[in-house]
Amino acid sequence: MIQPPSWLPVSPDSDFSVYNLPYGIFSKGKEKARVGVALGEWILDLAAAAQLGLLSEWEGAVSVFEQEVLNEFIAQGRPAWQSLRKSLQRLVTEEESPLRAVADQVLVRQAEARMHLPVRIGDYTDFYSSLEHATNVGKLFRPDNPLMPNWKYLPVAYHGRASSIVVSGTPVHRPQGQILPAGAEVPVLSPTQALDFELELGYIIGKNSPLGSNVATSEAGDYVFGCVLVNDWSARDIQRWEYQPLGPFLSKNFATSISPWVVPMDALVPFQTEGPRQEPPPLPYLRTSGAFNLDLELEVALKPGELPESTLCQTNARYLYWNIRQQIAHHTVTGCNLSIGDLLATGTISGTGPGPSSPGLSSRGSNGCLLELTKGGTSPVVIAGGGQRTYLLDGDEVIMRGFAHKNGLRVGFGEVRGKVLPALEQPGAEG
Amino acid sequence: MIQPPSWLPVSPDSDFSVYNLPYGIFSKGKEKARVGVALGEWILDLAAAAQLGLLSEWEGAVSVFEQEVLNEFIAQGRPAWQSLRKSLQRLVTEEESPLRAVADQVLVRQAEARMHLPVRIGDYTDFYSSLEHATNVGKLFRPDNPLMPNWKYLPVAYHGRASSIVVSGTPVHRPQGQILPAGAEVPVLSPTQALDFELELGYIIGKNSPLGSNVATSEAGDYVFGCVLVNDWSARDIQRWEYQPLGPFLSKNFATSISPWVVPMDALVPFQTEGPRQEPPPLPYLRTSGAFNLDLELEVALKPGELPESTLCQTNARYLYWNIRQQIAHHTVTGCNLSIGDLLATGTISGTGPGPSSPGLSSRGSNGCLLELTKGGTSPVVIAGGGQRTYLLDGDEVIMRGFAHKNGLRVGFGEVRGKVLPALEQPGAEG
Repeated sequence: MIQPPSWLPVSPDSDFSVYNLPYGIFSKGKEKARVGVALGEWILDLAAAAQLGLLSEWEGAVSVFEQEVLNEFIAQGRPAWQSLRKSLQRLVTEEESPLRAVADQVLVRQAEARMHLPVRIGDYTDFYSSLEHATNVGKLFRPDNPLMPNWKYLPVAYHGRASSIVVSGTPVHRPQGQILPAGAEVPVLSPTQALDFELELGYIIGKNSPLGSNVATSEAGDYVFGCVLVNDWSARDIQRWEYQPLGPFLSKNFATSISPWVVPMDALVPFQTEGPRQEPPPLPYLRTSGAFNLDLELEVALKPGELPESTLCQTNARYLYWNIRQQIAHHTVTGCNLSIGDLLATGTISGTGPGPSSPGLSSRGSNGCLLELTKGGTSPVVIAGGGQRTYLLDGDEVIMRGFAHKNGLRVGFGEVRGKVLPALEQPGAEG
Repeated sequence: MIQPPSWLPVSPDSDFSVYNLPYGIFSKGKEKARVGVALGEWILDLAAAAQLGLLSEWEGAVSVFEQEVLNEFIAQGRPAWQSLRKSLQRLVTEEESPLRAVADQVLVRQAEARMHLPVRIGDYTDFYSSLEHATNVGKLFRPDNPLMPNWKYLPVAYHGRASSIVVSGTPVHRPQGQILPAGAEVPVLSPTQALDFELELGYIIGKNSPLGSNVATSEAGDYVFGCVLVNDWSARDIQRWEYQPLGPFLSKNFATSISPWVVPMDALVPFQTEGPRQEPPPLPYLRTSGAFNLDLELEVALKPGELPESTLCQTNARYLYWNIRQQIAHHTVTGCNLSIGDLLATGTISGTGPGPSSPGLSSRGSNGCLLELTKGGTSPVVIAGGGQRTYLLDGDEVIMRGFAHKNGLRVGFGEVRGKVLPALEQPGAEG
């Protein structure tokens, strides 16, 4: 696992170390979008590298690097991902690397590139796998019945909207929807007054499973290509009015943001850790024994316009109750098929840690959404410069970050950012 | 609207009259799948017709007919759909039609063709728009609270699983999932004991709407290409245990069947009818005034193995409370984007009509699923040959049909069929 350092200058604080090598889709100027790999402040242009013969040892089809999404690359399969990863590690670390002579043709500064949605996402499933989140939210929506009787038996999930998944940096208009004002019996159409973020991790499916067959927990690891950060934007007032009996719909269909770099599972192996003890024990088809959680530091920062950032949440993915193998086994136990590029998100990641030391957060700072951080909008958080927030205001930018570190290794996700724009004026109707 | 009869022999009872001309994807033998149009017992091969120059007046790109899905054809836009429809009507009705001389190269018998999923479905949304269905089901799941307070204010919906949508004729394995046995506190993994169908209509989106903008009811008609029949298979025991608080997931993710022929909205115009009076009146963004329901006769038949068919349900799409324009306006009011090929299904269509005269159904026969027809599995329906059913048994084939007729015009959907296969053995786990 130990890799020599790159001959490229890579800061020890960079998320994109030689241990990481995440995949993304980038473009520069008016050039076509294509596949790249992040290293330090650079992008290694795999389409250019292939054209220059630098990937001639790789057994996969190099045309996949000229695609505008990673799906065709992912379809080459795990042995191909792994051999490419080895080739790339050699290219960026060996003193005699042939890349050095053509570096100006193959390396692009991240600051000069535009990132695109990395995968064509067929279906998006959002789980609800943090016990702390489910309990905290349950208390707010159903004080007498916070955790449903099913929660500890199955990884609860719902299907999300795939078309509105956007890449980091895409601004998000405040959505309108139906809201039931306090004390009213008749709803109104209004821009949400309770716009929230949800800090999540998303797994990108790397292998098709056929309709009519399931994937056991023991095989589920083969079906995961990599990971991204996810901001599952939510409108809490719309959600509260609409969600029974079929679950959230408009309250989450307007946007979901993901980070542009897909961190391969092979880069996350050193950070695997055991999850919380599961009691009662899951049914046999959901049992796992091993280290299938990830020890990833996660944080959410808020940047209101020109004001400085405030850290609102610090937590860790290791708190999650249900792991990705259990999620996949459950999702497919009916015979439901998974497809390359599907996104399986964890649900909001809350935890039991202390969180950041910002004033006003007290013990709530390891919770991954404002609904929890502000106790349902009743207890504002204080932000830098003396302001406060219950829910997001127009002009607020939400920035999520995540990284793992251990024994001098650092593997990070970069950021997923999104700025809140004012609600669009909605035309009337009658048609 | 009045069309001369076709020079091809088309039975007056055929769903596929010259007024219909639905689009589908077919293949014959080992040939590539391509676009066809149904007429009587025939398929008009549009790829072959274009190659022979029969569509030279059409302004669209004829390469779209060689695709394995209708999406590229649909993307040509409404004026192109309408002009093609006129060209085709002339080709199949005019005595001097140039098609007659090359009929053997352009016409394929439906009996000799295999039908494929007609569209690449990006996102699938399932509504819950029948007041009768929501009330009947609500009584079974929540006797004290059948209709949620939101139901008459908004067209309730959830995101469905797109990957497991299959074309008519695809058999469906009985799914496994978690079930809470009566009186138990701990669930078991079991093949569903309450496999159900749901009779629905599905609208295929015909125009992209951009993320961040909405579609008003007055514009919503422009966004619909056509209609299919939908069987939204459901496992009621899995649903009952899992559905709170985020809605159905495994109980519906294993399969959704659609009919192979997409009936263009232009063929359904003569059958538009007003929907039920909406009281309380919807909020302004959901108001419509006009005839936006469809007067479509719908039925569900059950064919158990070699036994004869029994008609279990007869109803009509005109009973639906929320119409497609309202569904689209609601879906997009947040700025959620719609994409060509998306499927918007109505939810189970129940009604107030008498239903079929089969013994044992009494007044319940206009309900579109077994959950309602059998009062939650407590009151079996009698089927031909003396058997009975609460829920579906292995070997049962479910057949849904739909057609409109008026003044000698008949426009039908054909069928959506699916046979229940036994549950697959599921491997154990621990990984």
